[in-house]
Amino acid sequence: MTADRDGVRPLATTFAVKSSNGREGSDPVAQGSVGEAMQVLGAAAREAARGVALASAEAKDQALEAAAAQLRRATAAIVEANKRDLAAAAEAGRPGSFLDRLMLDAGRIDGMAKGLEEIAALPDPVGTAMAEWTRPNGLTIQRVRVPLGVVGIIYESRPNVTADAGALCLKAGNAAILRGGSESHHSARAIHTCLARGLRGAGLPETAIQLVPTTDREAVGLMLKGLGGAIDVIVPRGGKSLVARVQEEARVPVFAHLEGLCHTYVDRSADLEMAKRIVVNAKMRRTGVCGATETLLVDRAAPEGCLAVLVAALIEADCEVRGDGAAQDADSRVKPATEQDWSTEYLDAIISVKVVDGVDGAIAHIQTYGSQHTDAIVADDQATAERFLTRLDSAILLHNASTQFADGGEFGMGAEIGIATGRLHARGPVGVEQLTTFKYVVRGTGQTRP
Amino acid sequence: MTADRDGVRPLATTFAVKSSNGREGSDPVAQGSVGEAMQVLGAAAREAARGVALASAEAKDQALEAAAAQLRRATAAIVEANKRDLAAAAEAGRPGSFLDRLMLDAGRIDGMAKGLEEIAALPDPVGTAMAEWTRPNGLTIQRVRVPLGVVGIIYESRPNVTADAGALCLKAGNAAILRGGSESHHSARAIHTCLARGLRGAGLPETAIQLVPTTDREAVGLMLKGLGGAIDVIVPRGGKSLVARVQEEARVPVFAHLEGLCHTYVDRSADLEMAKRIVVNAKMRRTGVCGATETLLVDRAAPEGCLAVLVAALIEADCEVRGDGAAQDADSRVKPATEQDWSTEYLDAIISVKVVDGVDGAIAHIQTYGSQHTDAIVADDQATAERFLTRLDSAILLHNASTQFADGGEFGMGAEIGIATGRLHARGPVGVEQLTTFKYVVRGTGQTRP
Repeated sequence: MTADRDGVRPLATTFAVKSSNGREGSDPVAQGSVGEAMQVLGAAAREAARGVALASAEAKDQALEAAAAQLRRATAAIVEANKRDLAAAAEAGRPGSFLDRLMLDAGRIDGMAKGLEEIAALPDPVGTAMAEWTRPNGLTIQRVRVPLGVVGIIYESRPNVTADAGALCLKAGNAAILRGGSESHHSARAIHTCLARGLRGAGLPETAIQLVPTTDREAVGLMLKGLGGAIDVIVPRGGKSLVARVQEEARVPVFAHLEGLCHTYVDRSADLEMAKRIVVNAKMRRTGVCGATETLLVDRAAPEGCLAVLVAALIEADCEVRGDGAAQDADSRVKPATEQDWSTEYLDAIISVKVVDGVDGAIAHIQTYGSQHTDAIVADDQATAERFLTRLDSAILLHNASTQFADGGEFGMGAEIGIATGRLHARGPVGVEQLTTFKYVVRGTGQTRP
Repeated sequence: MTADRDGVRPLATTFAVKSSNGREGSDPVAQGSVGEAMQVLGAAAREAARGVALASAEAKDQALEAAAAQLRRATAAIVEANKRDLAAAAEAGRPGSFLDRLMLDAGRIDGMAKGLEEIAALPDPVGTAMAEWTRPNGLTIQRVRVPLGVVGIIYESRPNVTADAGALCLKAGNAAILRGGSESHHSARAIHTCLARGLRGAGLPETAIQLVPTTDREAVGLMLKGLGGAIDVIVPRGGKSLVARVQEEARVPVFAHLEGLCHTYVDRSADLEMAKRIVVNAKMRRTGVCGATETLLVDRAAPEGCLAVLVAALIEADCEVRGDGAAQDADSRVKPATEQDWSTEYLDAIISVKVVDGVDGAIAHIQTYGSQHTDAIVADDQATAERFLTRLDSAILLHNASTQFADGGEFGMGAEIGIATGRLHARGPVGVEQLTTFKYVVRGTGQTRP
């Protein structure tokens, strides 16, 4: 096999895809069917999962640190691969927020490498006793953390997810099957090569982190069916069409990652200066992240001028504001919001603004339109804040803080695969611990049950 | 509405089915379609879930204690209803183990009532902080336990599950939709009436625990599709055909309850007397429970005569033994086992016996044939035991104790809905805590993300 154009030599055991300049790689998908290739991939993952489940913390951490070094060393090659992806995406007319998520530069690659090192530095969750107790009959019961097994991750064109997700799965003792967005495929491949080298260097199976070698969407369908029992859980990260497909086709457990339709509610008791800072940060710090606020709700009983101040601050921060009648009355630059706006995740510099009847009005709006991701209240009144925090049931609820804190790193978990909006197993940021499960170990001295 | 034949008056808000003597009840299923009836049921459950999620611990406990009193008071009526179910099942030629699980007498009804009282006495899990920490930026983060929402339980003809499952769901702040086996329907209905009265007495919505009013299997399919978003999780308890149906049709998360293909492995280092006691208890204490051992594995290097002693003890306890060549050689009463026997959950006084090459042979056999439910090792050698406990990945692993301890009560959890053999969220005994999820509550003082 010849060195790839970008200088990152594909590993012998890694599937190589037909490169975009037309040269043939050792592509099993070209030689056989997508189904056969995915079957092989699933079996390899299951086998690797047995190995990494019993791997020492040291071996896993060594693999991650070596992968970080590989990433830094391959910066030029990764940027080069990323440029190919970016050029194709720009040509396809993708919006700026899409290109922003896709783009990699030396700083972001160093960030990925740091992310791997941070994950390596986390305590190994596998084998730790989460709880332990003794029964009156003398049996001691331990709840012991164990890996989930094989995790399938289907994600959009955010190449950094390749590193984060692969590393988190490995740290938790899982094998990972990564299927990134087709428009980030060159970037993902270059990153994956670094991960595989790290695994090899630590004596771990390279197939512990595999990248699906084809951009054929049939592969997604096969993953959702579990690859014949090879996949234990699917983590989908993507837009509504992927979510709909997952809900229709998935035959294995899923950590639901719906959209982040996040709200910030400003109560009558809010400190206006604090509210302004929080609202602008929650919307504008990064508009493309799932924790960005999409709808601002303002208490009808807020002091006069409060709504106008908040709207003006957003507009001055270059945000388009679409509001109800009250918001339009408050500032002539506000465009009218339609019913559709209340359920739109813009992921862009656009916000919808609505006036509601106090905290109960905010709760009712969020229960109707929210995605149970992240919602915030700005209020000085404690009882009002507690009502919001108790009655709502989003994965993350914040009081007097920006919704942009919806992030595993900000929670102190290290990196995350995403924010789960489902209700089972993982909810909120999905970090290392959320990628484990547990078993009960019971030790006796000959006890039988009466 | 007239009093039902069995003397338990159906509640006005409870669906009544066409009674077996042909009289018409207020059966919406007779009046409309199963789909419409289930839709109404789902909507009522969702509405009730909002109520019980915020209900006080006192109200929930009062409902459970009142339901226990109702159960004791209705003992004669429940036994009468159960006799109708038993007669029909006997006529249908159901085996003894089936009838044993179906049968209710005053003792078992009192046991159910005690179960409700024990659940009432458990601490309320809802609203407790499972973890709490402060970030360097001053944000405090709490992981707070919250109800799952609406739990759908599809179970076989074990009428006591009606009480246990309904009560556990309520204690955890959930609404329950119970769909019991059609052959226990009269018993389940009589029990459900007591639960509904308890709810009413405590001022809680009666629809917090609903019994599916029809034995039409279409209702199961509708539940598996989630009743239009009304069901958050399905807990199936049943045989292979139900499990297969769930895997094929479920569109909502499932707590997998596969079969209990439990093993007991007797190592060369085992104390033979202890092994004998554990093996006989693990198989014969109750043969119809999912924690009963179905396969005995004996170390090929065990002291001579060990296998014969174990086999003889089982046969003398009236257990049919089906074994491999070595087991047949050890005792002429052993019948030959076929390949099928290693994957058969007998739930009866039958056991399969196989000689294996030490602990690694036992691990390999269990990885091939087990259902990741409960497996035990009898061994004095600690390193061997740890190897078994570490390398296997069953929900419950025991050292020197009977597999019949696989039970929420024996674990100190109070009652359980069942033993989950899946890997996500709930694993092992599913008690009150496993029927909750969590959310993150983040409190700040105006923090924005840099």
